[in-house]
Amino acid sequence: MSPEKIAQALENVRNTTPLVHCITNYVTVNDCANALLACGGSPIMSDEPLDVVDITTICGGLVLNIGTLNASTIEGMRIAGARATELGHPIILDPVGAGASKLRTKTASDLLDTLNVTAVRGNMSEIKALSGASAKTRGVDVDPSDSVTDENLNESAEYAMKLAGKIDGVVAITGAIDIIANNSNAFAVRNGSPLMGRITGAGCMLTCVCGAFAVANPDHTLKAMTTAVAFHGLAGQVAEARMAKGDGTGTFRTYLIDALSNITPAELQTGANIEEI
Amino acid sequence: MSPEKIAQALENVRNTTPLVHCITNYVTVNDCANALLACGGSPIMSDEPLDVVDITTICGGLVLNIGTLNASTIEGMRIAGARATELGHPIILDPVGAGASKLRTKTASDLLDTLNVTAVRGNMSEIKALSGASAKTRGVDVDPSDSVTDENLNESAEYAMKLAGKIDGVVAITGAIDIIANNSNAFAVRNGSPLMGRITGAGCMLTCVCGAFAVANPDHTLKAMTTAVAFHGLAGQVAEARMAKGDGTGTFRTYLIDALSNITPAELQTGANIEEI
Amino acid sequence: MSPEKIAQALENVRNTTPLVHCITNYVTVNDCANALLACGGSPIMSDEPLDVVDITTICGGLVLNIGTLNASTIEGMRIAGARATELGHPIILDPVGAGASKLRTKTASDLLDTLNVTAVRGNMSEIKALSGASAKTRGVDVDPSDSVTDENLNESAEYAMKLAGKIDGVVAITGAIDIIANNSNAFAVRNGSPLMGRITGAGCMLTCVCGAFAVANPDHTLKAMTTAVAFHGLAGQVAEARMAKGDGTGTFRTYLIDALSNITPAELQTGANIEEI
Repeated sequence: MSPEKIAQALENVRNTTPLVHCITNYVTVNDCANALLACGGSPIMSDEPLDVVDITTICGGLVLNIGTLNASTIEGMRIAGARATELGHPIILDPVGAGASKLRTKTASDLLDTLNVTAVRGNMSEIKALSGASAKTRGVDVDPSDSVTDENLNESAEYAMKLAGKIDGVVAITGAIDIIANNSNAFAVRNGSPLMGRITGAGCMLTCVCGAFAVANPDHTLKAMTTAVAFHGLAGQVAEARMAKGDGTGTFRTYLIDALSNITPAELQTGANIEEI
Repeated sequence: MSPEKIAQALENVRNTTPLVHCITNYVTVNDCANALLACGGSPIMSDEPLDVVDITTICGGLVLNIGTLNASTIEGMRIAGARATELGHPIILDPVGAGASKLRTKTASDLLDTLNVTAVRGNMSEIKALSGASAKTRGVDVDPSDSVTDENLNESAEYAMKLAGKIDGVVAITGAIDIIANNSNAFAVRNGSPLMGRITGAGCMLTCVCGAFAVANPDHTLKAMTTAVAFHGLAGQVAEARMAKGDGTGTFRTYLIDALSNITPAELQTGANIEEI
Repeated sequence: MSPEKIAQALENVRNTTPLVHCITNYVTVNDCANALLACGGSPIMSDEPLDVVDITTICGGLVLNIGTLNASTIEGMRIAGARATELGHPIILDPVGAGASKLRTKTASDLLDTLNVTAVRGNMSEIKALSGASAKTRGVDVDPSDSVTDENLNESAEYAMKLAGKIDGVVAITGAIDIIANNSNAFAVRNGSPLMGRITGAGCMLTCVCGAFAVANPDHTLKAMTTAVAFHGLAGQVAEARMAKGDGTGTFRTYLIDALSNITPAELQTGANIEEI
């Protein structure tokens, strides 16, 4: 990706304030809303089946996160997703805990099968579970044996590309090294901070940020998603660099949102560490 | 309003620790609880229809916020609201997203029609939607064309007074300039910070703070609400003034709650910028 | 308790990353997840009846918090609790608002009657309500007349021991002085900060931290719970000590989570203020 396009992708978010309808878990929903606002988007949360059609209609994109799914919110996701598909809005799926329970794996798979999902953002265990590979999960965290490393980078990219081909969209596998791929191209992102795994919601926030980038950059979903991942990772680095004596994960969470609100397109252009695989 | 009464209104909250039953959205509920505690009140959240009568009964007031309404919580709001009406408790309604979906507009309207709502706190788009005016909304944010300005101050106050008359209560329209009115009087408040619009929940928190002020100042709802709005706006100013290099919206959110917990009645008396329209 | 065992209890959490399934209220759930991560555990939130069996099964322990209970989450608690009982996992109950509503008292009592609850963590008003004593509550806060003091320490310990005997487990009553007891032994903990009562969720976070300690220290639930209470209280003291001019309850909340993530076993050994009653 050219450096200018990286800056432009963020610039487009900041200039257009994309409205993103989020059906997401109640654990990290506040962080998701603040992350969306910080990056330049505007969040609307609504999961009631009788409410979601109107809300999806006035938004530019839809984020579905199954973190604390229940019977009613699953129905809300189906209806909102059908409406977003009808309208051609980007749909980003975060399959939290796919592989950890039958309901989560089935719900994520059903949403992929029935909706025009534009992109999936998950950890390797979740992506493997959705790819039909036999996957281990450690609850909502990636199983350590599933970590993406320099050694298994190509193999990992194949998982992403396989699922991307299946959904005819983009798949982002995030971890120490992030992989973002469609069925023919893949990027690795080496931004981020190990502290992101020590707070809840770093992944959920990223998925929402991806939603804003996808809405604001409709012609290049792969580049939009890759830039969003680098932007969020860079925010983690900026946050980590500010940590002082006595600071811990509470402060890191605050600084992460600070960085999402402060990083400029020029800073992203300089700081993004993206390479084509 | 006399400066002494402004100080007294906050003093009354701090001295009586009003218990406020909140049925509110899951996006900003944590901020709402912390804002209520910070200003001197005590929050109780409960939305289950089988639980709310008991909870409303032991509290002094009720806040209803339709931000992430669903079938069950709407029912909870109806039952809690009926009980609060029966007991003569102040009820404060935050019609989040009224005008953005039929369900939200209808739910807010139904609550206004059937309950003895003491006050409504919303943005101009929401208030217009409830006034029967043709309204635009930008999701849960005010439509830019609906901003309250010095130029349209009187016209804006008329919207507030019209709805206030209809519900025989108080209406607060918040934005760059805030308007608080009953059917015969209106105040403008010029406190606040533009950063309040860059975090989620500033409005929801204010509605809960209004609940505490309304409970602690039962004889003067208009003055209680006006003071609450000025107090919350001043907290935004105090928070903004503390921002240093590297700080962003995450830190601002923390500082906003800090200020709500720290501002003294004397500081409020000095800092409140209230004028009768 | 020997100082070495106090340090070891935290060391065991940090070394084993216990997975804790939490069914908890949506007000403080984000703080609960971050507190669990900070202390060294790993949280999974799931309340859907069709999801909880799988999630309980892959975890090491279960936390049930009735703070914003509803019909569906009560059913989720029953099913998850039955599965955890079957598997012999520690179950920690936080009876938020027991005594404040019939539904809360009944739900907490039913869970105690039907599940193999390992430990209960609540304030004195809640514990009295579950002990069958006539209790006052001030919503979800302890009634002032129920405060544990040096004067009523032995009497207060009897309430804890009585309920502990009834459930054949451990009971922690937290307040200015904390009491942790089984049916034959009781400890008092004098850590903590008055600021913990000025934010929402300090109690809920502690209950989750107790879950992590109970899972990581399966042979000594009383000592695990006592250490968790001292650890959390010490974190409050560390947080309070960092407060500077302008800081308020927002900053305190951040610093509390910072401290949970930073306190070392050696620091806990030095700072824990535990005495046998």
